[in-house]
Amino acid sequence: MRIVLVGATGTIGRAVAKELGERHEIVAVGSRSGDVHMDITEAASIRAGFERIGRVDAVVSAAGKVKFAPLETMTEADYWLGLKDKLMGQVNLVLIGRDFVNDGGSFTLTSGVLSHDPIRFGSSASMVNGAIDAFVRAAAIELPRGLRINAVSPGVLLESMPSYGPYFRGHEPVPAARVALAYAKSVEGLRTGQVFSVL
Amino acid sequence: MRIVLVGATGTIGRAVAKELGERHEIVAVGSRSGDVHMDITEAASIRAGFERIGRVDAVVSAAGKVKFAPLETMTEADYWLGLKDKLMGQVNLVLIGRDFVNDGGSFTLTSGVLSHDPIRFGSSASMVNGAIDAFVRAAAIELPRGLRINAVSPGVLLESMPSYGPYFRGHEPVPAARVALAYAKSVEGLRTGQVFSVL
Repeated sequence: MRIVLVGATGTIGRAVAKELGERHEIVAVGSRSGDVHMDITEAASIRAGFERIGRVDAVVSAAGKVKFAPLETMTEADYWLGLKDKLMGQVNLVLIGRDFVNDGGSFTLTSGVLSHDPIRFGSSASMVNGAIDAFVRAAAIELPRGLRINAVSPGVLLESMPSYGPYFRGHEPVPAARVALAYAKSVEGLRTGQVFSVL
Repeated sequence: MRIVLVGATGTIGRAVAKELGERHEIVAVGSRSGDVHMDITEAASIRAGFERIGRVDAVVSAAGKVKFAPLETMTEADYWLGLKDKLMGQVNLVLIGRDFVNDGGSFTLTSGVLSHDPIRFGSSASMVNGAIDAFVRAAAIELPRGLRINAVSPGVLLESMPSYGPYFRGHEPVPAARVALAYAKSVEGLRTGQVFSVL
C-alpha cells in the first residue's frame, strides 16, 4: 500500500513509520519536515499536499495540537485552538483526502484517553478527543467506495513521560511501539467506525 | 433555586420548564423569546444576558444547532456551524456563566444519542455530542466552589418524530417529559461529570 502519514516525525508518527514502513510505502508528511509539508489547520495547505502526493491507499494522521491549561484560565480562544488544529485539522484530512484515496482505502485519526479519563488542565484535549471518536463512528457509516475510518486512542506515551508525567500521575504509560500496532490494525485490517484504545 | 434555562421554548426546554418550574424559579432564555434574550454563538450576548439576570443557582442549556447533511456534501464550514453553536455556545455558557453561579451550583448541557449511535446525515451532530460529553467529564474535575456539570444525552424525541422520524428509523423515541427528568436529576441531585443518557 501507499500510505500518507501525517505527523510522521512525532513520537507516534515515528513508531507508525517503523511498523507500517516494513511492509508499505510511507509518504511522510510534517508541518516543516518530511517528504511533503502540510499545515493541517489550513485546508489549502492540505489540498496542495495531496495534489503533490497523488493517489494513496491510506491516510494516517498522528498530528494535532490542543492547549493544556487550568479550566479556570481557559478562554473560548483556547478551545478554538484545539478545535481548529487537532479536531478540524484531522477532519479536513478526511474531507479533502477522500478525493485522493483509492477504493477500499482507509483513514486513521488520533484521539486519546482523555476523552474518558480526564486530567487536570486537559478539558480541551478531552473535548477534542471525544469529538474525534464520535466523528469516526458516524463518518464510517456514510463513507462510499468501501472507504473505512477509525481512530486510535492512546494512553500517555512512555516516551512522553519526562514532560507529561506530572500531569498523568497514575496513568499507565504505553510504549509508542504498542500504540503503532493499533494503526496497523486500522490500516491493514477491515474494521471501520472503531476507536482502538491502547491502554 | 433560581435556574437559568437557555433554549426555554424548544421541545426539551418547555418540558424542563414544566418539570423544574414546579419547584424553582425559572429564568427563561431564548434567542428571540423568553425573559432574557441570548445569542449563544456570541460571547458578548451571553455575558450581557447574565448581567441582566444576575446570580443564579443553576444553568440549564437545551440549545444548540448543528447541520444535518450527507457526509459527501459536508464542508469544513458545515462542521464549524455546529462547533460554533451547539458545542462552543454551550461551553461559553459555562465559561461565562461560572461568574454568575452561586457556590454549589450546577451546569447542565445537552448532547444526544448520536455520539454513540450514528445516523445518516448526522456526522456533525455526532462530533458535537461526543465533544460535549467529554468536555463535561473533564470540566467536572476542575470546577471550583463545589460547582457541578453534567450533560443530558437524549434519544430522538417523540415530539420530533413527525420531522425527524425518517432519519431515525429504528430509534426508540423518548417523550420530552422523560428527558426532562434527567435535567432534574442533574440540577437537584449531587452528581457531577456525568452523561445522563435518556433512551
